[in-house]
Amino acid sequence: MAIIPDSEYRKRVQRLQANVRAAGLDAVLVHGNEADCAGVRYLSENWPTFESAAVFVPAAGEPVLLIGPESEEYAKGRSKIPHIEKMVEYRESADPEYPGIAVANYRDVATKALGGKTPKKLGIASWSITPLPVYMSLRQQLPDTELVKADDTLVSLRTIKTEAEIACMKRAFEISELAVEAVLAEIKPGMTELQVTGIAQRELYRHGAEYEGHALYVFCGPATCNAISRPTHNTIKANEVIQLNIGARVCGYSSSVGLPFSIGPLPERKHRLVEFGLEAHFKTQELLRAGKPAAAVVKEYEEFVKSRGFGQYLLYGPCHGIGMMEVERPWMESTSTYNLAENMTFQVDTFFYDRDFGLRWENGVRIVEGGIERLSQKYMKMVQV
Amino acid sequence: MAIIPDSEYRKRVQRLQANVRAAGLDAVLVHGNEADCAGVRYLSENWPTFESAAVFVPAAGEPVLLIGPESEEYAKGRSKIPHIEKMVEYRESADPEYPGIAVANYRDVATKALGGKTPKKLGIASWSITPLPVYMSLRQQLPDTELVKADDTLVSLRTIKTEAEIACMKRAFEISELAVEAVLAEIKPGMTELQVTGIAQRELYRHGAEYEGHALYVFCGPATCNAISRPTHNTIKANEVIQLNIGARVCGYSSSVGLPFSIGPLPERKHRLVEFGLEAHFKTQELLRAGKPAAAVVKEYEEFVKSRGFGQYLLYGPCHGIGMMEVERPWMESTSTYNLAENMTFQVDTFFYDRDFGLRWENGVRIVEGGIERLSQKYMKMVQV
Repeated sequence: MAIIPDSEYRKRVQRLQANVRAAGLDAVLVHGNEADCAGVRYLSENWPTFESAAVFVPAAGEPVLLIGPESEEYAKGRSKIPHIEKMVEYRESADPEYPGIAVANYRDVATKALGGKTPKKLGIASWSITPLPVYMSLRQQLPDTELVKADDTLVSLRTIKTEAEIACMKRAFEISELAVEAVLAEIKPGMTELQVTGIAQRELYRHGAEYEGHALYVFCGPATCNAISRPTHNTIKANEVIQLNIGARVCGYSSSVGLPFSIGPLPERKHRLVEFGLEAHFKTQELLRAGKPAAAVVKEYEEFVKSRGFGQYLLYGPCHGIGMMEVERPWMESTSTYNLAENMTFQVDTFFYDRDFGLRWENGVRIVEGGIERLSQKYMKMVQV
Repeated sequence: MAIIPDSEYRKRVQRLQANVRAAGLDAVLVHGNEADCAGVRYLSENWPTFESAAVFVPAAGEPVLLIGPESEEYAKGRSKIPHIEKMVEYRESADPEYPGIAVANYRDVATKALGGKTPKKLGIASWSITPLPVYMSLRQQLPDTELVKADDTLVSLRTIKTEAEIACMKRAFEISELAVEAVLAEIKPGMTELQVTGIAQRELYRHGAEYEGHALYVFCGPATCNAISRPTHNTIKANEVIQLNIGARVCGYSSSVGLPFSIGPLPERKHRLVEFGLEAHFKTQELLRAGKPAAAVVKEYEEFVKSRGFGQYLLYGPCHGIGMMEVERPWMESTSTYNLAENMTFQVDTFFYDRDFGLRWENGVRIVEGGIERLSQKYMKMVQV
């Protein structure tokens, strides 16, 4: 079974601490919730549900896992960080009071972790998901501490994957392909999008996934236009684009295999865009290699699409980072300023939409010297069932 | 099919606006994310995924749905609020830049919704999940506006359910019971907790759920001690407590049916606590009726448990609110200051744990005059398969 060894969790904390020191910070606070647990899970393996959680990482010394009042037994069994504190800021969004349950506060946590000193400068990683109760308590309990956005201290680590991480991702992609296989074998006109989602869910868990890698996509008809959507009770019909994006999660690592297909043949206009989408999907993969500027990939991809006369169907860039989140940094956009590097992992995400339908080819790749290694490849082909 | 009629969404906005005026606010901002979409979905039916969302509700006039840059087509098809604006604050947590996509800002949204005036006092509902980018942009774009916590304007509405809401919840509980039935029929020693979770997932979607109502619980062995936990690759064994909490979501409404059971008989000590848990579960239901102080329920429940000699196995109070979230306000705690009222809905949540195992009976009820109406009841019995 693919796992992340305990030693790797310890190395992650050490490398984060080096970044914290380099950034001139005394510590960072990394937040995680049920929608984006990645930062917390990356450092601790703790995977919050119902409640949220955080990891307080001093520039040197032992980190502290901060959890909600109900997660103590769960976190003790799961966390690679031995020091755990319960705090009311990580309770459920229903704000229970838990009379009689003792909780810690940021002042005590921070000064203890920093050997008695109050932090002068505290970085907040996972800035975009850190909620107000955390911020307000920090302001109140550490009034003399400067709070700064510090996502980069953690993102730079998460962006380059280790062999253990790659192994988890490969297994997640394999399971996704098995779920797609079952869907293609069982799907029938008249089923609802949600019933088809249930087939995929069954298969993900059957083959060893620990959860979906993202809220699954099974769309038909006009819903395929939506870059983001959720499956509904709409029924599947023959001769129209059906869109699957099926993703397993393995040991914290997400995946997603996306393909448009049909039951019976598609009308010529739709077939042509689906087929061109696949061509563009392969084109992006040709453009990827270690050392290449991300913005150049986007530019060359967009030029290719436009040169072939499909520019009006584009919504956005051809790749985004994947790892513990199905969508994580870095995105590849025309404004990107970084170069691709070995062991970055991307979803090649080829989305086109017209007025009444859309399609998305999606597969994972790892950047290597001179090109890519594919993390999934079974469904990079035109499929008609 | 259970649905919330469009007219009910309009009434919700109107009633929220009355609360906003009564609180002396010019408007409220209601946040929603993938982990807690309830406030946003309650007002708009929009159900964010990948991105987050919010509803800006002025004290009078038209509300505005605020979404991330990729959700436009999806939100247009889904939202009961016609006015929709894209804002960068609601993008994915990977912070894409979306070059070339035009976005709105809070100043423009607020002054337009308020007929050209800048809000003096803006309430933030869903305080506990509102993230820093929203708060910082509000501070920057509306520097003269006072921001105040305003959860109560919305919670007071959500707490009392309508007939349409109750119908959705009943259907969700029915589907949960069907999924439990399938699990009990198929579970075998040697299956992993996660494989059993897959059986439940398959059944939820098969019977018309739109999603799980919460991250499902299938635990065996010591993991049953955990008040909060996630299923693992641990294998199911005979003669030990197996804990299920299976919840479907229907039209935005969650449910959960929880029961401890075993494959073959349990050792006497475990059987006794499971059986007492069921007795306590019924006792709580006897204590519930419209008009009764919530704190009195907790006091009488705890006295009952202690009088029977099981006080040391208690973790927390016997009920929490349920609706769009499986756990929502109000909780019933010894510190609660409200009285039960007709059409409040609660999960009767009876959790006991000992050193090496735990158990949770969970079923939904609606408060009526003189007592309760049960939203689920099929699995309030000792089960051995």
